[in-house]
Parts: sequence; C-alpha cells; structure tokens
Amino acid sequence: MSKSTERPDHLSGYGEFELINQFFRRSLPKKQNDVTGIGDDCAIMTFNEQLFQLVTTDMLIEKTHFIKKRIHAKDLGYKALAVNFSDIAAMGGEPSGIFLSLGLPGSMKISWLKNFMNGFFELSEKYKAPLLGGDTTRSESGIIINVMVIGRVKKGNVKKRSGSRPGDKICVTELLGDSSAGLKLLMDGHNRNLNERDRKYLIQRHRRPPHSLEEGQWLGRKNSVHAMIDISDGIGSDLYHLIEVSKLGIDVRLDDLPVSDALVKLAETSGNDIYDYAVNGGEDYGLLITVDPLVCEDIKKSFESTFDKPLFIIGEVTKEHTGVNYFEQDSIREFNNKGFDHFG
Amino acid sequence: MSKSTERPDHLSGYGEFELINQFFRRSLPKKQNDVTGIGDDCAIMTFNEQLFQLVTTDMLIEKTHFIKKRIHAKDLGYKALAVNFSDIAAMGGEPSGIFLSLGLPGSMKISWLKNFMNGFFELSEKYKAPLLGGDTTRSESGIIINVMVIGRVKKGNVKKRSGSRPGDKICVTELLGDSSAGLKLLMDGHNRNLNERDRKYLIQRHRRPPHSLEEGQWLGRKNSVHAMIDISDGIGSDLYHLIEVSKLGIDVRLDDLPVSDALVKLAETSGNDIYDYAVNGGEDYGLLITVDPLVCEDIKKSFESTFDKPLFIIGEVTKEHTGVNYFEQDSIREFNNKGFDHFG
Repeated sequence: MSKSTERPDHLSGYGEFELINQFFRRSLPKKQNDVTGIGDDCAIMTFNEQLFQLVTTDMLIEKTHFIKKRIHAKDLGYKALAVNFSDIAAMGGEPSGIFLSLGLPGSMKISWLKNFMNGFFELSEKYKAPLLGGDTTRSESGIIINVMVIGRVKKGNVKKRSGSRPGDKICVTELLGDSSAGLKLLMDGHNRNLNERDRKYLIQRHRRPPHSLEEGQWLGRKNSVHAMIDISDGIGSDLYHLIEVSKLGIDVRLDDLPVSDALVKLAETSGNDIYDYAVNGGEDYGLLITVDPLVCEDIKKSFESTFDKPLFIIGEVTKEHTGVNYFEQDSIREFNNKGFDHFG
Repeated sequence: MSKSTERPDHLSGYGEFELINQFFRRSLPKKQNDVTGIGDDCAIMTFNEQLFQLVTTDMLIEKTHFIKKRIHAKDLGYKALAVNFSDIAAMGGEPSGIFLSLGLPGSMKISWLKNFMNGFFELSEKYKAPLLGGDTTRSESGIIINVMVIGRVKKGNVKKRSGSRPGDKICVTELLGDSSAGLKLLMDGHNRNLNERDRKYLIQRHRRPPHSLEEGQWLGRKNSVHAMIDISDGIGSDLYHLIEVSKLGIDVRLDDLPVSDALVKLAETSGNDIYDYAVNGGEDYGLLITVDPLVCEDIKKSFESTFDKPLFIIGEVTKEHTGVNYFEQDSIREFNNKGFDHFG
C-alpha cells in the first residue's frame, strides 16, 4: 500500500467498502432513529411492536457476476433470489415480498426469460413470498438483474453482524470453497482428473447456492447465538465484517475449515491450494455465526439433529488481538486476498 | 398487428406491459391478501392500522435511459431519485427510506460518483428520506442505477390508477412535452432558431423532472380525486393505464393540453408536431388525475392558490366508448405511438 495521502481518481483504485464509507454513508435524520441502515446484511426498520422489517438488495450484472453461456436461465433466476433470501436468513428473518428489476437486450429469446422466471418463482412460491413489483426495461449492455427482498423478524430474534463477544465460538453451516471451485470448472472447462460426479457437484454448488432460511430462523431464536452474517464474499472477507466495529480479533484453524471431498480432489489434481478456495472463494453462502462457548456444543447437537447436517466450529473470537489469524498447525498463515472486492 | 397467434421469440417483439402480464404476474398467496402487487405506481402493503407502506423501483441503464456525456452526474443523481419519488407522490405518499444499487465501470472517475451522490442526497435530505442500503458493484457494461423507495400513506389517502369514474374530469399538474423536447435538443445539438433561454429551459426540464411530492400528498387528501398516476411514459401511454381495468374511455381535447412557449417555438421552427411531444414524449412527470366533475373547479382553484401554479383540465372519462380519443376541433386524431415502450 502506498503511504501517499493522494487517492486514485478512478473507482478501480478503491474497494467496495471504501466507496460505501466515503460516498454512501450519511447520518440518518432524527425522525428515522428507529432504523438501522448501511452496514449489515439487511436494513432494519421498525414494523410494529413485535416485528422489525428487513430489506436487502443485490445487483447481478452479466460478465461481472455471471456468463450467460455458463449458467442456465432457470438456475440464474433461482440464484438471483436465493442470494437475497440468504441476507434475510442472516438476520433471522423470513421473506414477505420481492421486487425484481430486469434490464434485458431486445435480442433476448423469450424462452430465456420464461426459464429465468420459472427458476425465480420456484423459490418465491416455496416460501410464499410474492413478486410485488419491479421494472422491466431494454438494455444495450447485456443482462442486468436487481432483486430486492422485504422480510420480517421478531424483534427479539434479529441477529446483527456486530454482536460477537470475546470467547465466542465461530461456526459455519455449509462446506466452504465449493462454489468458487465450480465457477473455475465452468470457466476453465474440463479437468481430466476429476470424475463427472464431483464435477457436477461443484458446479451445482455454484449454480444453486443455499439460502439458509430455515437455519437462519432457527439460529435467530437462540439467545446464545450472538452474531450472524451470510458468507457471500468468502470467509476471508466476511470474518472481517464480524469485528468491523468491535476491537476484537478472530483465530481460525485452517484444519477445521469444512471442505468437500470433491474440492479436495480438485485441489490435489490441479495443484491449487484448497485453502485459497475455502477462505477466499466467494458465493458459498450458508451462515457464519458466533456462539456462546458454554453452550456451543449443545447448539451444535441440536442444530444437527434438527437439520440433519453438521454445524462446523472453525475458530474463536478473541480480545488478544485485532484482525483475523489463520493457524496452520502452530504457525500463522497469511492470505493476500481478503475475499472478493469488486472494484479492487 | 399480425393476426397470427404465433408470437415472436425475441423480446423485441413484445411490449413491456405484455411481458409483465405474461411472465411476472402470478396470483398472490393467501397469507399476503393485505398487499396489492404489480399494476400501479407502487406496491401497497399494510403497515399498521393507520398506514399503508408503498414500494417503488426504477432501473436506469446507460445508453438506454441516458447518455453519460449529455447529463451531468449531479443531475443524474437527482433525477434517478426524483422519478421514484414521483411514483410515491402518485399514490399520495411520502418517502421514508431509499435503497440504491449501482453498477459502475472501474474506469469511472471518483469525481463522477461524488457528483452523482451529491445530486442524489440533495433530494434525499430535503425530504428526510435516508439512504438505508443497496449494492455497489463493478460493471463491464456501463453505468447501471437501480433506485428503490419505500414510502408511507394514510390508508384513506391512497390513490390508485384504477379509481376513475364516468364523467370525471382529467387534469395534469405540469406542462407536457418539454422533457422529450429537451432530450431531442441534447441529442441533435443546436437549433439555430431557438434562443438560449428556451433551449436551457427545455433541457433543464429533461434533466431535473418534477417529483410532485407536495402536490401528490395534497391531492391524496381530497376525496373528490378518484385516480392518480404519474406521467412517466407520456399521456399517450399513461392515459391507457387509467382505464386498463375498467370498461371506460377517455376524451382528450388537444387544444387543452398545456405546453410551454419554448416547446411551441421549437415545434414551429423545427417542423415537428407539438402534439407528438405533448402526447408521446416521455419523462415529463407531474401527476395525471381524475376528479369528480361537480367539484373540479373548486379543486383547481384551491390547488392553484396552494401551489401558485395551474392545474390543467384536459378531458373527461366517459362510458360512451373504450380507449382514448384525441379531439382536434371536432375530428378525432390518431396517434401511432402509444407512448414509450422500451422493447417495442
């Protein structure tokens, strides 16, 4: 990093979170002191005595977030909604309404739009969250998708990024790194050393990420879960969000990061480091939580019997240092890339 | 129109509203019977005993909706928000929170973003509607702006598109056609016969459209105002929205359409028909309302003394026919283009 105080004059010199802090944050007016704005998975607004309203939005742009030829329209429709549901899940909420803005080229086939909406409605209808509005417009610049989801959560159940306490155990609800490995397979083509089943598994994990709505609502009801966030950019970036406003640190044991057999095989046969996928690979989704250490094993058992899948303990929150330390046996390993950063 | 039942297989063969009806409308699940979805300026959701919540969203795409070189970033930031406020106004509501998704090229200058946000916050802060969240991401496809505004309105004050009754007077709150004339000047360059003041006026009307928040809330409180919509696509399109679900018709007198002196001069000196601008020019904004004929003159006087600007009566709702008839003296004039249609 240059020590100069001169800042670059193009966006490419900035990270997304720098831009947000510099240009998008302004203090809320007094009449709005019942809302929490920028800085969590969702904005939180008072809805009534019992409930908060949650709002989240995500923009997907062709070539930046997806390659049209590499993802079926139905999967893309599902995924565009799933990643927003994941933000609602990360606050402990349930979705209640959806808004969809689409920019589409005039040359686009009607069958593509039909398939896209089928994937979208597959998930929307499962959770009885209706499409309430949006905007549809011609685009000269490829496909543009902006989804916004409104949700609700009981006031006592809402979980924020900022709730972690020293000593908390850190857990994740899904295997890490599969989605970015699936993307790599889609972009690089065939990997001869990987069998078809493993290949399909990794690609499917990229195309149909988990939304974690049931898990998020269940974890939201547990007082011993102190903080929650969804893993959209990779834990290398998302762990930092857990300690952004505190002066706490995080210790992670690389050996404890949960990875699939398919990812192990891909890393072995391609010469890539598996931890680059598990730490810095984006779009895994699933939830990252911090839990009271006294009851963490109980929560884990209860989670596993409820959902018939593991809850993985990967580290602890500490007040001994700030930042995130990754332990490989007894030594600390440095990672260059702190997760996705769309402008960096 | 072809009588074939075969439909084209690309989006360019469809209109925006056709696409909405065919692919985006699905019936709302039963638990959501307190909401009104697609089909008005905003979605309406029950907020509490007294209030409805309103939600609207608009996507602006470079090259489709604006040319970067032809609009200052500050004006674009203002306009992106103003057009959403206009939808809130058209339901009689006030804005309470804003979400902004931006897709931006990495090569974009920081000063552009700073100016954009200054224009955006100029309007946001005036109405104490805070920016609560959004998404910022790199775009390989030029500038993409998606704004969503949440608002509130007293249940008794909400106005829908569908409220018009036979005999109602039809009124507009702004001059028509200026914005599209301003756009034409921006695209075609200099018009030698137009003086600089008129040129600047028309261009400014394109860059800084009215949002009508005060007017919309005032009209919302009048029981004699039966229907309201904002004029985003030109009355040639927006008048149809007033009678979409009824079996009513509309008679408009072209002589009564309010146009500026600058637009008259532009039309005269360029050989264009002034009514093409006034009927089919988009982005005028301002409000289109239908009013009980017995009290329309009273509403007009009261509006004019409150806002120190005219309310223009341009026609009537009728049950004698369906569709919209434009009278030029005693004959009916046909317009080919029924307002903007982004895919057609």
